[in-house]
Amino acid sequence: MAIYTKRVEKLKKIGRNAGMSAFLINSEKNMRYFAGFSVLSLERFAGIIISVENQTPVLVVSRLEAEKAKEYSAFKEIRSYGDSENPTILLKKIIKEQKLEKVFGVEWNLPFKFYRMLIECSPKIRVKDASNLFSRLRSIKSAEELEKMKSAASIVADGIEVGIESIQPGVSELSISFEIEKTIKQSGGESVPFCLILSGSNSALPHGETSKRKIDKKDVVLMDVGAVYEGYYADLTRTVFVGEATKIQREIYETVLRAQEAAIKAVKPSVEAEKVDRAARKIIEDSGYGRYFTHRTGHGLGLDVHEEPYIAPGNKTVLRRGMAFTIEPGIYLPGKFGVRIEDDIAVSKDQGKLLSNLCKEILII
Amino acid sequence: MAIYTKRVEKLKKIGRNAGMSAFLINSEKNMRYFAGFSVLSLERFAGIIISVENQTPVLVVSRLEAEKAKEYSAFKEIRSYGDSENPTILLKKIIKEQKLEKVFGVEWNLPFKFYRMLIECSPKIRVKDASNLFSRLRSIKSAEELEKMKSAASIVADGIEVGIESIQPGVSELSISFEIEKTIKQSGGESVPFCLILSGSNSALPHGETSKRKIDKKDVVLMDVGAVYEGYYADLTRTVFVGEATKIQREIYETVLRAQEAAIKAVKPSVEAEKVDRAARKIIEDSGYGRYFTHRTGHGLGLDVHEEPYIAPGNKTVLRRGMAFTIEPGIYLPGKFGVRIEDDIAVSKDQGKLLSNLCKEILII
Repeated sequence: MAIYTKRVEKLKKIGRNAGMSAFLINSEKNMRYFAGFSVLSLERFAGIIISVENQTPVLVVSRLEAEKAKEYSAFKEIRSYGDSENPTILLKKIIKEQKLEKVFGVEWNLPFKFYRMLIECSPKIRVKDASNLFSRLRSIKSAEELEKMKSAASIVADGIEVGIESIQPGVSELSISFEIEKTIKQSGGESVPFCLILSGSNSALPHGETSKRKIDKKDVVLMDVGAVYEGYYADLTRTVFVGEATKIQREIYETVLRAQEAAIKAVKPSVEAEKVDRAARKIIEDSGYGRYFTHRTGHGLGLDVHEEPYIAPGNKTVLRRGMAFTIEPGIYLPGKFGVRIEDDIAVSKDQGKLLSNLCKEILII
Repeated sequence: MAIYTKRVEKLKKIGRNAGMSAFLINSEKNMRYFAGFSVLSLERFAGIIISVENQTPVLVVSRLEAEKAKEYSAFKEIRSYGDSENPTILLKKIIKEQKLEKVFGVEWNLPFKFYRMLIECSPKIRVKDASNLFSRLRSIKSAEELEKMKSAASIVADGIEVGIESIQPGVSELSISFEIEKTIKQSGGESVPFCLILSGSNSALPHGETSKRKIDKKDVVLMDVGAVYEGYYADLTRTVFVGEATKIQREIYETVLRAQEAAIKAVKPSVEAEKVDRAARKIIEDSGYGRYFTHRTGHGLGLDVHEEPYIAPGNKTVLRRGMAFTIEPGIYLPGKFGVRIEDDIAVSKDQGKLLSNLCKEILII
């Protein structure tokens, strides 16, 4: 539980510096991050209230969730309301008890209905978007979080290996994705939010979807798989060749691989995110494929599949030890084929360290 | 496209009656319902603006989505903003052009950030929760929508049949769920948001999760499966017995089945939702199992898996032709086993009609 106390203390500190008096946190991921417990708060309100001063953080849930909250939440102060009660009254009471009628930091996606509940508590309450404070804290992973991400990556790597074994002409993209999902779930993956198998010219579509298309004799097969283990994401991509790889396919594969390795090598504390993007992009541009690398080099990873820091042109965010993100350059020749290689990286004391461990050599099946 | 025009006209009418001057709609499902096109609007704003007067409805998207929007949206007026532009300025312009600086109806879950964008457009704008107007319209399905729901139900039924064939001692819950998911996806199901296989005493947990548990010789196996076809949900549950069904298991199965059939029989236009719940609940109570039926009898179904009308005690919503919902009574003996039978029903001119067609006879495998 010490970890949650530490997170809350850090939040209080940056909140004070940002001129906030308290936070109302309602999203599933942020509740989980700060309180170690979360509820999918649909129409029924659930949230945590954290004063930046010495008051005790409070978890508010509906009575239906109270028992579970007592068991799992790191917050000792749990207040609940019955189905016939108005949660606004409870919220108002807590705000009054803790004298929080000032500036509340909230998430950018706080539902309108809950925002209204909050401002109804007192005419003195003002509300500010504090999303960047939450994401700044979440972007630095503890050793414990990185361990979970490693486990997630290892499970996804196992899945992709099984997927590769199942590739042969005549097998459908869907079948390959089933093999991967099955392996991941049997290895303890909580969920597999995406498992994209793109073959032939579909591999040239960075946002394509797994279809019933059957693998052909000389196909390129791109596999992009994301799964969750103990709340944390891994997101890996491999591209393999069936039967043979033409000269140009080999050239493109080697270029993407060099770009990916250059970006990984560019990772270290104090470097700006855009520099890492630049390292990958330069190699692809120098090879003449610049216009076929149509997306950013990577995105942060953690409780969410897309979070800070984004490894993208123009992002001046300075990398810090404990940040974790994907490095996934690609080259996509429209109507022909695409190649992407994606690994998950954490910033260590002096370099970028792979969270995943999956072969990157060119593979011809 | 006529269908979308009709929906928008209906919304304008009930909006005028509710004292609103316009709507800002941002959720994926409601955008899809009114404009035939939707974007998952995360940090980047996307939405539709509908005046209750004669002005043309407008779709606002980021430039990245503009081409796709032109192709798929039923709205002809599409306005887009570039990555370096502020969408608030565009929104303000549209609001000014159409003179909408009055009362805006929004969704209860409109993200705080987008709510702020809206009120920044003019100090004269006031915002009201219009969620109930949207859900009221969506609760009445057209013939076309019901056809999609029938297809969804037929796909889920096929999946459950394949799942049943795969049940035998030694097979894991996860394996059964893979067989079902595979069948559904191969039959054109877009996604399978849940596929719960609960065996043995797990079947007594209405919110249990599929696990690696292996089916035992005399297990009860409960399968609750939801899938989406062309945007519309089906949600079916069947409970089967392995090897044998004891006297008490048969008694409970027959009770749940009678309760389900009584509830279906109670469905017709003008009846209150709670009456349908009552019809199921009464049979279970009269059999002495009242305290083991721990949830509501059903929930509306459509673009969302849970929507209006809820078939629950106290819900006075009057059923109307075109409404569609689940009927899913259950009896759960903690630590022992549970039985639930769930079908999807639409209200026709004079009765409840099954959207699904899956055997309900007691099945011993």
